[in-house]
Amino acid sequence: MAASADHKESPGAARHILMYALIYDGKPALREIDRPIPRPDEALIRVTLAGICGTDIEILKGYSAYRGVMGHEFVGRVEECGDPTWIGKRVVGEINIACGECAWCLGGLGRHCPRRTVMGIVNRPGCFAEFVALPLRNLHCVPAGIPDEAAVFVEPLAAAAEILSQMHLEPGTRVAVLGDGRLGLLVAQVLKLHGAEVILLGKHAWKLDLARRCGVAVAEESASPLPAASLPVVVEASGSPRGLAEAFRLVEPRGTVVMKSTFHDSARLDATKLVVDEITLLGSRCGDFSVALDLLQQGRVAVLPLLSKVFPLPEGVEALDYVQRESCLKVCLRGS
Amino acid sequence: MAASADHKESPGAARHILMYALIYDGKPALREIDRPIPRPDEALIRVTLAGICGTDIEILKGYSAYRGVMGHEFVGRVEECGDPTWIGKRVVGEINIACGECAWCLGGLGRHCPRRTVMGIVNRPGCFAEFVALPLRNLHCVPAGIPDEAAVFVEPLAAAAEILSQMHLEPGTRVAVLGDGRLGLLVAQVLKLHGAEVILLGKHAWKLDLARRCGVAVAEESASPLPAASLPVVVEASGSPRGLAEAFRLVEPRGTVVMKSTFHDSARLDATKLVVDEITLLGSRCGDFSVALDLLQQGRVAVLPLLSKVFPLPEGVEALDYVQRESCLKVCLRGS
Repeated sequence: MAASADHKESPGAARHILMYALIYDGKPALREIDRPIPRPDEALIRVTLAGICGTDIEILKGYSAYRGVMGHEFVGRVEECGDPTWIGKRVVGEINIACGECAWCLGGLGRHCPRRTVMGIVNRPGCFAEFVALPLRNLHCVPAGIPDEAAVFVEPLAAAAEILSQMHLEPGTRVAVLGDGRLGLLVAQVLKLHGAEVILLGKHAWKLDLARRCGVAVAEESASPLPAASLPVVVEASGSPRGLAEAFRLVEPRGTVVMKSTFHDSARLDATKLVVDEITLLGSRCGDFSVALDLLQQGRVAVLPLLSKVFPLPEGVEALDYVQRESCLKVCLRGS
Repeated sequence: MAASADHKESPGAARHILMYALIYDGKPALREIDRPIPRPDEALIRVTLAGICGTDIEILKGYSAYRGVMGHEFVGRVEECGDPTWIGKRVVGEINIACGECAWCLGGLGRHCPRRTVMGIVNRPGCFAEFVALPLRNLHCVPAGIPDEAAVFVEPLAAAAEILSQMHLEPGTRVAVLGDGRLGLLVAQVLKLHGAEVILLGKHAWKLDLARRCGVAVAEESASPLPAASLPVVVEASGSPRGLAEAFRLVEPRGTVVMKSTFHDSARLDATKLVVDEITLLGSRCGDFSVALDLLQQGRVAVLPLLSKVFPLPEGVEALDYVQRESCLKVCLRGS
């Protein structure tokens, strides 16, 4: 909780207002902790809705050795801010808190700033709480036409769209997306919208049905497998080392495997196939929130069907259990 | 020796002329076997000089499960050919024998033809022999200004230059090349020639001295290590899984790790770093022979200093031992 403590000790901080937060300190627990006090360049945001992500589940397994308030996907309202024009604004927030001064930041890639903290992942309290404080430069206002239940998808949708900023994807390119989870369904829709000929591979009939209703071609993994070396682009979004092996099997010579999911373990790589077939393996993480907000505002990506269940914040531990136990898609925590 | 037998059984083959060849059938051995009889679209080439490559050593460890005449780097003279204009020509030969009809072949990337054989590596007799037969479309004439001792480097030099055909490398880009072996020294020179700011990392003082004399900046691995996440491009040419780990340590966010060497084992990959830092891992194999011949003809890459020792073909087993035992660079076998 070092980062949280850091916030408490802001100059002039005298009050001690408590709030509920979902903390991870070796196991997840709901606690009452001091509400963060925003710095001069920050806003205090009342979290309306927060989304549970695969990375949160990896944190429970040791990923990033994180301790503190969990969570990095949210929508909320600005409640305190030095600049009064922000008060009451409905916002989403970029998860990387960058220094703003290094070459990465100045080049517009603050999400790779070597001095960054990451909300709910690296040395910075997350948003599974009644309130979260974030720098104003991290915030994006949510247009009125986007309901909270869609806005909470901005972070993963931006991550899905990031692929298109990293590689040139010719319209008509055949792409397999591995994994019918939240991220796979978003990636498949975004790439299809871009003009790719997408097939989503998964193992859950109901998730594949849902993807089909979103206009994405699908196939069950266990049915007739796609032939080896048959696709120029394969996106691994299943979050498992096995998915990476399957992606390598499917990709054709000179093709690209995009790796979208983080997982705690290291991965085994078929180095011979990589070299002999001259494969490109592309790691891909966070993306541009404004791209995702545009997609949502234009109604071009279906996200509401991906919302499986909403728990009140005080039932956060149960919500984390639920995500790990049940066959579900996006599970959210509702604040006040 | 299936592919060799295949050659023997060409229609009308009546003669049985024997030749010496270095065979791998679980262990390397010099044998007398039938000289290949070229098909109508092939030439029979008398091998003058053949180079031992890291891949040959990997084959001794099980790579590609190859059995047959070893070797894929050579220079020689055409001795028999349906088209008499080829007779007597000094040639080098592309190692992938492609079908010539599939989309890969028609697109100019026959080296990825799914039906290809690969000389001395996949289902095709190699060039560690007195003679080798190759399709005419695989052959490149060697200009008079290039001695045999330089021409034998065409295949690995083409492989080194292949990196530039796969990625855009801005002049001035800082690049670390890992591995002071044959391939590392060629890659470092080619990238420097292209305008990159190259540093070659290795562990052999004499090889690094040689690289320095070729104009390449060098550093000993065991001396002060380069800082983590400090380079936009790292080329792994050490042929070891440890080299891949070091390349991942050195590469900066959004950077590229080029993997040049094949090895028999699979590799462990830091999947978190790949995704979080959005690294591109690029597999790179064979390249364009004409590019390499141009480089040699213009005298822009020093290869002769890399020639450590030449054994006569009948001492091929000793030569393979020597390569594995001694600290050396290129070792060649001399034919007749």
